[in-house]
Amino acid sequence: MLNTFAAEWLPSIEAEMRAVLAGEEAAVAAHYGMMHYHMGWVNARFEPESLPAGKHLRPLLCLMACAEVGGDPAQALPAAAAVEILHNFSLVHDDIEDGDETRRHRPTVWKLWGVPQAINAGDAMFALAFAAVERLADRGVPAATTLAALRTFTEMCVALTEGQHLDMSFETRSAVTVDEYLRMIQGKTAALIGASVAMGGLVGGAEPGSDEALRRFGQAIGLAFQIQDDMLGIWGDPAVTGKAAGNDILRRKKSLPLLHALNDAGAGAELGMLLARPDLGAADLPAALALLDAAGSRAYATDLMERYYATGLAALEAALGDRAEQSLLWTTAQWLMRRET
Amino acid sequence: MLNTFAAEWLPSIEAEMRAVLAGEEAAVAAHYGMMHYHMGWVNARFEPESLPAGKHLRPLLCLMACAEVGGDPAQALPAAAAVEILHNFSLVHDDIEDGDETRRHRPTVWKLWGVPQAINAGDAMFALAFAAVERLADRGVPAATTLAALRTFTEMCVALTEGQHLDMSFETRSAVTVDEYLRMIQGKTAALIGASVAMGGLVGGAEPGSDEALRRFGQAIGLAFQIQDDMLGIWGDPAVTGKAAGNDILRRKKSLPLLHALNDAGAGAELGMLLARPDLGAADLPAALALLDAAGSRAYATDLMERYYATGLAALEAALGDRAEQSLLWTTAQWLMRRET
Repeated sequence: MLNTFAAEWLPSIEAEMRAVLAGEEAAVAAHYGMMHYHMGWVNARFEPESLPAGKHLRPLLCLMACAEVGGDPAQALPAAAAVEILHNFSLVHDDIEDGDETRRHRPTVWKLWGVPQAINAGDAMFALAFAAVERLADRGVPAATTLAALRTFTEMCVALTEGQHLDMSFETRSAVTVDEYLRMIQGKTAALIGASVAMGGLVGGAEPGSDEALRRFGQAIGLAFQIQDDMLGIWGDPAVTGKAAGNDILRRKKSLPLLHALNDAGAGAELGMLLARPDLGAADLPAALALLDAAGSRAYATDLMERYYATGLAALEAALGDRAEQSLLWTTAQWLMRRET
Repeated sequence: MLNTFAAEWLPSIEAEMRAVLAGEEAAVAAHYGMMHYHMGWVNARFEPESLPAGKHLRPLLCLMACAEVGGDPAQALPAAAAVEILHNFSLVHDDIEDGDETRRHRPTVWKLWGVPQAINAGDAMFALAFAAVERLADRGVPAATTLAALRTFTEMCVALTEGQHLDMSFETRSAVTVDEYLRMIQGKTAALIGASVAMGGLVGGAEPGSDEALRRFGQAIGLAFQIQDDMLGIWGDPAVTGKAAGNDILRRKKSLPLLHALNDAGAGAELGMLLARPDLGAADLPAALALLDAAGSRAYATDLMERYYATGLAALEAALGDRAEQSLLWTTAQWLMRRET
């Protein structure tokens, strides 16, 4: 059912994104070329190529929400394109901020064209994401609804920068609490998923209050999704995730399970010393995993993840009533809960 | 008359900007603190201070346009705040892109808090500028008008990134034509002034077509303004501008008069060689100025500037009819034409 929906709508989402990011003036061809490169549509010489498309989870959730409240997903395509373009804008700037040199097995935009042009290309994608939302009005969406979608979108953009600010500031701090971490992913991950669902609901004509419940559904499954990601980064099956066992421990990534254990009165100090070793390597993994066990961090993260999924499903019932369990959004949440990569 | 208008409205513009950029959550205080620092409201320790306010030309033009088409400038305050915040966002990112370490005699945001946090603080100001425009709806501006203002604003943001792209790409090129330069300042300088005036007109209830004429007025005086700036950078009176004589020549700044002379069949090659000298200094100024004279570059720039002002005033007459010459916008354009700094 999910695959059918995705197969039906992905080409239209892609076409809408290409229309928004077109930029046909020769004088600024390189400006748009950088954006098209980041999207995976051209190579570094701006010749057409196509990378395997991503999952496009956010735009699909947007269209599903529109359909589930009785709207026509085609009308929500500009909003779907907007959330995917916005996500890609944030990746262009994140890559600069984190100094990441590769993405999807290719050099990042800043690595190829330098930081100044990459900042500016990201800014253009940011502005064009707003242009995408505004195209709702061209598909017959009333001005008041388009404006409501824009306000939801804008609030999310602000939240995204707050999350990114916290994420970067954590790197320079020795101690970060679990609550601080949850506040961070609320902005950095959950806000965008929440806005994707809420905007789809708005366009589909959700009753007042329902769009807010849809936003809470998206935010909650966004939080659950991130915590699950954190767990897969430590306990995921390397054969399935494609990453080394205990990958995030060796990278000292301050993800939820690790922060929980570091804040544990019993195991925290020892784990902190272990992670501080300059020669931290695969041989230290059994000891690190044992400390996470002693702190009960896996159980804690699992429980929190399940509670967020449950919160999300309850919000979906508030939005859709009896139809919730038969909805694509419900199925998607269930599918996300079971994922192993 | 202009001073009276400015004195009446500047405090309200400032208050609106402070409301938009408030950010009251303790966890992200430093994120908003960086923005407040850039705005000149706090020092680097986030303690209140107040730098002398800038001219605020763009937000004032926005409010004037609203008044001149019969609207209440108070209703346009969110749009006025938006264009000033957007202008400041672009300065935060420009400072990173250009590697500028000081602004208004203080260290720039990236210099104090690093490039990653500065990119992200700029992104937040970008998003909050859109939030500012959306506040029009809270002052009783109809949704359709607010949406029209948002589309004007978004198009301008895209144009701004195109202008910035061209400006940066010129630095790595040996030859740039005058037409390419004009295309660049169209995006980098004129688009924002055009949008400021057009948005004020829209909020004030400008007839269909009039808002477009107001935009052309703003764009034309924006182009004239930039060319005038370029001329002051070469021939301005150091006692008035506060900059050294021939400042932009010594900085090898590819401004309009210099590009005109470099593209001149007679003087171009010699000027090019002079500017390429590693020891270029004040002693070379007389020779450089003579070459600009030989190419007729000052007369060319003066003529172009005057033609853009005339184009702008004609557009203003198209927008306001007989009232144009009595309008604050006309007076402002005349005042800008006579400026010496």
